[in-house]
Amino acid sequence: MNIKGSILFGLLITFSAAGYSQTVNSTERSGVSPWGADDQIGRLNLINEKNNLALFSAIRTGKVYDLGVEYFIGMPSFTALGDPPYQYWLTHTPRGNRVGDITHAGDSVNSKVSYTGDAVSMYTHTGTHIDALAHFGLHGKIYNGFEADQYLSDRGWKKGGAENIPPVIGRGILIDVAKYKGLDILPENYVITLKDVQSALQTEQLQIQKGDVVLIRTGLMKYFYTDAAKFTGNGVGINLEALKWLVDEKGVMTLGGDNLALEALPSSDSNNWLPGHTYLLAQKGVMFMELVYLEGLSKANVNEFLFIGLPLKLRGASASPLRPLAIPIKN
Amino acid sequence: MNIKGSILFGLLITFSAAGYSQTVNSTERSGVSPWGADDQIGRLNLINEKNNLALFSAIRTGKVYDLGVEYFIGMPSFTALGDPPYQYWLTHTPRGNRVGDITHAGDSVNSKVSYTGDAVSMYTHTGTHIDALAHFGLHGKIYNGFEADQYLSDRGWKKGGAENIPPVIGRGILIDVAKYKGLDILPENYVITLKDVQSALQTEQLQIQKGDVVLIRTGLMKYFYTDAAKFTGNGVGINLEALKWLVDEKGVMTLGGDNLALEALPSSDSNNWLPGHTYLLAQKGVMFMELVYLEGLSKANVNEFLFIGLPLKLRGASASPLRPLAIPIKN
Amino acid sequence: MNIKGSILFGLLITFSAAGYSQTVNSTERSGVSPWGADDQIGRLNLINEKNNLALFSAIRTGKVYDLGVEYFIGMPSFTALGDPPYQYWLTHTPRGNRVGDITHAGDSVNSKVSYTGDAVSMYTHTGTHIDALAHFGLHGKIYNGFEADQYLSDRGWKKGGAENIPPVIGRGILIDVAKYKGLDILPENYVITLKDVQSALQTEQLQIQKGDVVLIRTGLMKYFYTDAAKFTGNGVGINLEALKWLVDEKGVMTLGGDNLALEALPSSDSNNWLPGHTYLLAQKGVMFMELVYLEGLSKANVNEFLFIGLPLKLRGASASPLRPLAIPIKN
Amino acid sequence: MNIKGSILFGLLITFSAAGYSQTVNSTERSGVSPWGADDQIGRLNLINEKNNLALFSAIRTGKVYDLGVEYFIGMPSFTALGDPPYQYWLTHTPRGNRVGDITHAGDSVNSKVSYTGDAVSMYTHTGTHIDALAHFGLHGKIYNGFEADQYLSDRGWKKGGAENIPPVIGRGILIDVAKYKGLDILPENYVITLKDVQSALQTEQLQIQKGDVVLIRTGLMKYFYTDAAKFTGNGVGINLEALKWLVDEKGVMTLGGDNLALEALPSSDSNNWLPGHTYLLAQKGVMFMELVYLEGLSKANVNEFLFIGLPLKLRGASASPLRPLAIPIKN
Repeated sequence: MNIKGSILFGLLITFSAAGYSQTVNSTERSGVSPWGADDQIGRLNLINEKNNLALFSAIRTGKVYDLGVEYFIGMPSFTALGDPPYQYWLTHTPRGNRVGDITHAGDSVNSKVSYTGDAVSMYTHTGTHIDALAHFGLHGKIYNGFEADQYLSDRGWKKGGAENIPPVIGRGILIDVAKYKGLDILPENYVITLKDVQSALQTEQLQIQKGDVVLIRTGLMKYFYTDAAKFTGNGVGINLEALKWLVDEKGVMTLGGDNLALEALPSSDSNNWLPGHTYLLAQKGVMFMELVYLEGLSKANVNEFLFIGLPLKLRGASASPLRPLAIPIKN
Repeated sequence: MNIKGSILFGLLITFSAAGYSQTVNSTERSGVSPWGADDQIGRLNLINEKNNLALFSAIRTGKVYDLGVEYFIGMPSFTALGDPPYQYWLTHTPRGNRVGDITHAGDSVNSKVSYTGDAVSMYTHTGTHIDALAHFGLHGKIYNGFEADQYLSDRGWKKGGAENIPPVIGRGILIDVAKYKGLDILPENYVITLKDVQSALQTEQLQIQKGDVVLIRTGLMKYFYTDAAKFTGNGVGINLEALKWLVDEKGVMTLGGDNLALEALPSSDSNNWLPGHTYLLAQKGVMFMELVYLEGLSKANVNEFLFIGLPLKLRGASASPLRPLAIPIKN
Repeated sequence: MNIKGSILFGLLITFSAAGYSQTVNSTERSGVSPWGADDQIGRLNLINEKNNLALFSAIRTGKVYDLGVEYFIGMPSFTALGDPPYQYWLTHTPRGNRVGDITHAGDSVNSKVSYTGDAVSMYTHTGTHIDALAHFGLHGKIYNGFEADQYLSDRGWKKGGAENIPPVIGRGILIDVAKYKGLDILPENYVITLKDVQSALQTEQLQIQKGDVVLIRTGLMKYFYTDAAKFTGNGVGINLEALKWLVDEKGVMTLGGDNLALEALPSSDSNNWLPGHTYLLAQKGVMFMELVYLEGLSKANVNEFLFIGLPLKLRGASASPLRPLAIPIKN
Repeated sequence: MNIKGSILFGLLITFSAAGYSQTVNSTERSGVSPWGADDQIGRLNLINEKNNLALFSAIRTGKVYDLGVEYFIGMPSFTALGDPPYQYWLTHTPRGNRVGDITHAGDSVNSKVSYTGDAVSMYTHTGTHIDALAHFGLHGKIYNGFEADQYLSDRGWKKGGAENIPPVIGRGILIDVAKYKGLDILPENYVITLKDVQSALQTEQLQIQKGDVVLIRTGLMKYFYTDAAKFTGNGVGINLEALKWLVDEKGVMTLGGDNLALEALPSSDSNNWLPGHTYLLAQKGVMFMELVYLEGLSKANVNEFLFIGLPLKLRGASASPLRPLAIPIKN
């Protein structure tokens, strides 16, 4: 196995020799769900009506924050492994209708009724999106033991696909690492550590509770609309130790980042090019979001909120776009 | 102009001769927004923080209703004018990765790290979606006078596109016409009248208020997952008179239906194949939703609720998919 | 296994009970190529320079026949199993460039330099095309034993894909079954038999030679440009016995038909929904063409010709579109 | 108008100040065809049966040269203005069929009948292709005065689209500029001059005749399969003076290059970012090919040949892929 020198995610960073010291961890197997043999949503089982009502009742404002990015041709996205960049095209235009008359309505109608139609195509991991459990498995099996050979059809996964994701409702916590560091944006390729996470929480006097939706801000969104190459070429993200603390110690329900992959890139594990992904999705059943727009919350110093995420129910898919909402709450 | 005999929307219904009596209405021009010369969202300007907070405060339950449909190959959609049906395809699979090794990680890594990626393409009016103001204009101009020749680029509209749609939050009202008629689903091609709407509201003792989100149920969703041809071939919907009452008299903010086009098909106006669309979008600046899943609300007899709709911000687009949420409220 | 009543290829024809009598033939295994363990083109190995020169030298006219169909939105194609219909869209238009200025050249340049760009998408088996050996295998293996688990990556087959197909040059023979029967088009769902093939050849005093390119005309092209449903709903084609005679007895190099699947549909073998395909591709290494336009040759009574076919080299693909050429020759 | 500093075609080259001296040429209007008011193919009208037969009769070998490139994910293509890169995806796989059973044939059939299907999408100017006359116009009109407002529908051009291109048959002449210079590949961004063209012809003792197909080799294909960025970032090509000599003085029928745009990039005309394109297509009615694979001809020192090009008939399109063939001839 020689991953050294390869360019993953467009990052021109080679592993340090030290990166190769880690041995294959034989315990890295897809996890077994405590919610039953047919469970396909893992930690999202923590969503419940009692908690929902408590959160709704804690709202004290009509102000809402939009956590989704725009979709447009040329937007930053992960295409390093050949996936299609976002495409948009017109299928009907007012002038085109008049020339083509595919309505067979004739020119007097076509010149009056000005129809615009359009279509899009995208890698499911484009723009603000949530990774379904099917996105990463270990040794051919996704979370809860569903095996590709048995459940992966040409139309996607029959288990663990994005159509299973319920409306995601939970208490949201913003860990604004960039702001804690006093920066607009973290340094290029900065690796967020457990200490960073704990210190940022302490500074803001935030306590993570079981079932929380934890969003981590690097500030990378600064480049989203202005410099796609700068956005996708920056591997800033959180490390595995910090992820494990959030998941294993604090019991978060789901996570999100404003960067491309949530976790820091490139991987420091020579045997796994996305160890955070396999840890969260395959081992722990924790779905997470990428490319979440956190600038509004950061500017307004909102660190605690009702989070609402409504991913499209793309059958069998490994991810789904969504436009999350945050509504500030008070404890 | 000869629309007679053409097959619009896959409906094999020819216009009656009477259908041709209506003359071109010279007042059918794109409307001028009272919200200013640059306004691109029309009635959605009615969304406001005060109203939001009142709605949040009226929630008394943690139960939520999912109003979005699944996306899958073969799903019912409007392809009569050549638009692409929903497509889904896999770009990365656990076995495919091992054969292709496009990660350049080698087999020991590829057989451990089981990656699934996928992509989708769709007409923007596929599945549960909201029509942006750019979708239909009159005489080359969309609502508020934005002209195609000036604002329609090859990447969509520079004014009135879906990226402008804010998080849609409002009081939702379900007008369950099928239930009012004592039916699972309205008769094929049934045209919902103003009297139907008013009687259904009266029966449920519902009052529409200015700024409401009004959803109209035909019961057609019965066929959505089971018979695409039956779904798309059924022109059941609301007529123009009823739409005008809701919009002009009652001041609704936005509308939604569980059918393909909200309005009844085919058109009874020989000079306009979608008169409800041009009336709502171009003349009144009222965006609306189609293919909204209303079965859950209907079964639970929920007629009044907080409506939350978060359409993807597809830049320049004539529509955007969304997965709306309804949370019951009490006055 | 119950294929009865299913709708394959949009044909509303149920199998007769007699169709179920055939038992699984244990000899139906992917064939071994006499051209070596790495051979990926089967019978196309018969193409050779000596034969080419003899054919070129037999040309006595400058008249050429175009055997390819047009590609357009709404064209007849096989979408019964969910494959995408042909799509075409504009990416750049003269007016759109002026509005969007994505060239950053400014309006004086954009209004002078009128740029049109466009894109297409299609199932590889759309329009006139040739099936690569990778299209159908038996028990997971394509012709010459290449196994999907070893050679099928997410970017197609590493063996047997369309990029391996050489320029197809050979003596072409038209078997005009419709004309032989005195018909413009064969009866709906007519099954062409060995006797039909032999009689048509005899009538035209044609002898098939080893290495020939044999094209079979049903007349179905009559509907290609006018009635897509009529085209795709008609299962007219050749039966397996006739195919076997052409391949096993006469040694043809490749075949083509003017219909959707070359072979008659639906299958009369309850254990194989496309027995002609698996026989030709998987067992015999014989690629073949579908949707070949034979009207010009038929009208001009040209039955013998130089055939030139230049499929696009789509890497890894199961088929490739092409626009074949026929040039009459004299023996 | 400020094109300075913009990145066209991914070239990081700024115009020299001298580049701005050229004034707008008021004679740059779309040309009028001598072949009549409805002519849509310009110089390809020179193709005729007499010439074809003469060329066929001049063949003395069975050896053929394949001038087409492969299509694959990651192939070099022009995406600088947002056009979609080539995509390939599987729609049916042997294992996927077994899991999904969309044939409804059941596992015993699906495990026997191993079906592979796939689809592609591409900008029409991807891989070896020919530009149709509709690709570039001047002041809204393409060659022969067809105006976008009258003829450009949402499904492409009703005049001048690629479906009109006949089988392209002509005498081919290779101008191997790289070889003439004693190089594998011309220097980066080298601009081929009239003197280069004339000298290369003289060295090979070649005479261009009216109606010839002239192919110009830069050697850039060296990078096509190995370094996409190097291929698309190199603006090597022919200048306008040389093009004019070939077209106006020598009367060539069509041209082709092994580079991205035939002409040298970036443009030296500040008022036209592709002056060779508008000159050839809009003014002269000369279609031309790009990304033609000329390595085989060059290695074999074949400079004169029968050229056969059979572009797919993509209705309304601005270009079409093809896989040309060259067969050496002797005068």
